[in-house]
Amino acid sequence: MDGDHLHAGTRARHDRVDAVLDDFFALAKRRAESVGWRYVDLWSVLERNSAGGKRFRPRMVFTAYDALGGTDDEAVARVGAAFELLHTALIVHDDVIDRDFSRRGIPNVSGSYRDTATTAGIPTPAAEHRGMSAAVIAGDLALTGASRMLLGIGCQDHVRTRLLDLLDEAIFVSAGGEMVDVEFSLSADLPTVDEILEMERAKTAVYSFEAPLQAGAVLAGAGEAVVTAVGDFGREVGVAYQVVDDLLGVFGTEEATGKTTRGDLREGKRTVLVAHAATTDEWFTIQPFIGKADLSEAEAEHVRGRLEVCGARSFAEGLVEQHARRALDVLDRAEVPESLREALTPVVQDVLERVR
Amino acid sequence: MDGDHLHAGTRARHDRVDAVLDDFFALAKRRAESVGWRYVDLWSVLERNSAGGKRFRPRMVFTAYDALGGTDDEAVARVGAAFELLHTALIVHDDVIDRDFSRRGIPNVSGSYRDTATTAGIPTPAAEHRGMSAAVIAGDLALTGASRMLLGIGCQDHVRTRLLDLLDEAIFVSAGGEMVDVEFSLSADLPTVDEILEMERAKTAVYSFEAPLQAGAVLAGAGEAVVTAVGDFGREVGVAYQVVDDLLGVFGTEEATGKTTRGDLREGKRTVLVAHAATTDEWFTIQPFIGKADLSEAEAEHVRGRLEVCGARSFAEGLVEQHARRALDVLDRAEVPESLREALTPVVQDVLERVR
Repeated sequence: MDGDHLHAGTRARHDRVDAVLDDFFALAKRRAESVGWRYVDLWSVLERNSAGGKRFRPRMVFTAYDALGGTDDEAVARVGAAFELLHTALIVHDDVIDRDFSRRGIPNVSGSYRDTATTAGIPTPAAEHRGMSAAVIAGDLALTGASRMLLGIGCQDHVRTRLLDLLDEAIFVSAGGEMVDVEFSLSADLPTVDEILEMERAKTAVYSFEAPLQAGAVLAGAGEAVVTAVGDFGREVGVAYQVVDDLLGVFGTEEATGKTTRGDLREGKRTVLVAHAATTDEWFTIQPFIGKADLSEAEAEHVRGRLEVCGARSFAEGLVEQHARRALDVLDRAEVPESLREALTPVVQDVLERVR
Repeated sequence: MDGDHLHAGTRARHDRVDAVLDDFFALAKRRAESVGWRYVDLWSVLERNSAGGKRFRPRMVFTAYDALGGTDDEAVARVGAAFELLHTALIVHDDVIDRDFSRRGIPNVSGSYRDTATTAGIPTPAAEHRGMSAAVIAGDLALTGASRMLLGIGCQDHVRTRLLDLLDEAIFVSAGGEMVDVEFSLSADLPTVDEILEMERAKTAVYSFEAPLQAGAVLAGAGEAVVTAVGDFGREVGVAYQVVDDLLGVFGTEEATGKTTRGDLREGKRTVLVAHAATTDEWFTIQPFIGKADLSEAEAEHVRGRLEVCGARSFAEGLVEQHARRALDVLDRAEVPESLREALTPVVQDVLERVR
């Protein structure tokens, strides 16, 4: 789902989100001056961390909004920007939790603050701690910013209230998913496939698909049946997307995913693949390599082979097809207008194409 | 400023805040069930961490509200609860930043999660990391909860908007103060007294005094001049309170403060005392002991003596008097009604009594 084949309307919508975010950060940096330059710096680093993304969640907002006849360019850009800020908040704090200092090869908030401290001669533990501290604060600011962004929308009060409820629900559920993920990663017992799917849905799918699609529909003034439908669609396509992520984390190419295809195995990530494999006779040949920090490429190839032999790969691919199918079925409901069906069908195709 | 001498009206207000928070957590725990019992547990731990406090910030809200003739028990309780949740969020994340696993001798969110992991046989580093991860998420939930609390208030839209602005400003400024504090603690250069005062004001005084007092005034329908006055009052008394904290951190008794009187010295906390001492000829006899992790009581006594000899103690006491005086001067403004002057004067007296 990258931005290469955006048509002009989508490009204009993206630019507007960027403009809204530019204004948001410009104002924040101005306000931060009253506290001091160190605070202005934090805002600059946070701004860099929210820039250059694919604006995936805003795109979900627009897709529903435009297909349902919405025409308020400014309002929809603000809703998109709110979900982008929420995304920033969640990944900044997720990186703190995962003790990651970079994302897609570029220093994140923690990494930026760690690196300038290291350069200044501060020992690594103190420098890393500075990085984590800055990231805790920065995530709080992005989280607060998301709500503020919605509060400032010019629309009817009941629409704004509904949007705030959707944002709140997205934060609530993704925080829960994050917590469950933390607990899964600590436990020696492997969760079941269903537990993994539920966790992935909560941690990522709700705030990336369901909530932004519903927000776009609500802002466009859609009726309850349509809002429910885009939510159901978002849930199914969101789960499919997460399972694709699990597949790409092991079977993808570094060119396509931007990350090493040994990372998931090395960190022992709880995925649908692993959860399924654990129920098969092959597990004893796979298990020793899950979470092996120095996993070699030869070992990774062995694991990939075993995950195929035991049926975990085809099981996961089947899950993707199944949830994609269900997403398309939602679009066949009577209450879904043709324009919406046309706009959302490619979302499913994009997800499927990632694994083909 | 403890709760021993609350009169009946204040007690009723406190009970109402507790009831609002009980409802808030009960609803959250019910909603959390959809994500799983692990998430319900997190909410329970967060609830315990927000219970039993002195409800100091709600008290500031009530004090202004009641003195200005406010009568909506439910609305003011919700505003109080919102500031209590903000306080919870800030201390939970502050503890992550300070790597503290307890607060006033009781395990905090990180400590609770660390301890149950340790008991389950998880090695200390992983157990501590689990604790920190849970606390990052819990702080996010309390922060989001504070805004939600205000959104649910039954009042006029422009009043709600104003309250949300005050909360937003409080979060914005305290996040900045926290960031500056992180940077001060890392730098070998000592900040000046003015820099310390500005940081302490931003980190704590705004969200503890200025914002809740102003919120109480706004909810009571006070005019702009009065809202400005309670803000100015809050700034002065809040700074006085912080300097008292610095004094008690070195010269207080453990019975009165509930914390060791060597903690500030051992962690090398940047305080008004230290910043002033650094400008005197005595500094070379003090400096070796600031941040000395194993500071003995004899060494602490030496430092206390030197801080007196160099004038840092009396300088800090003078600052307290000066800001307390300014706070009282604000109450003499023509626009401050007699009822408000009577209600706020004891707030200054309480601050002064802490160091007497």
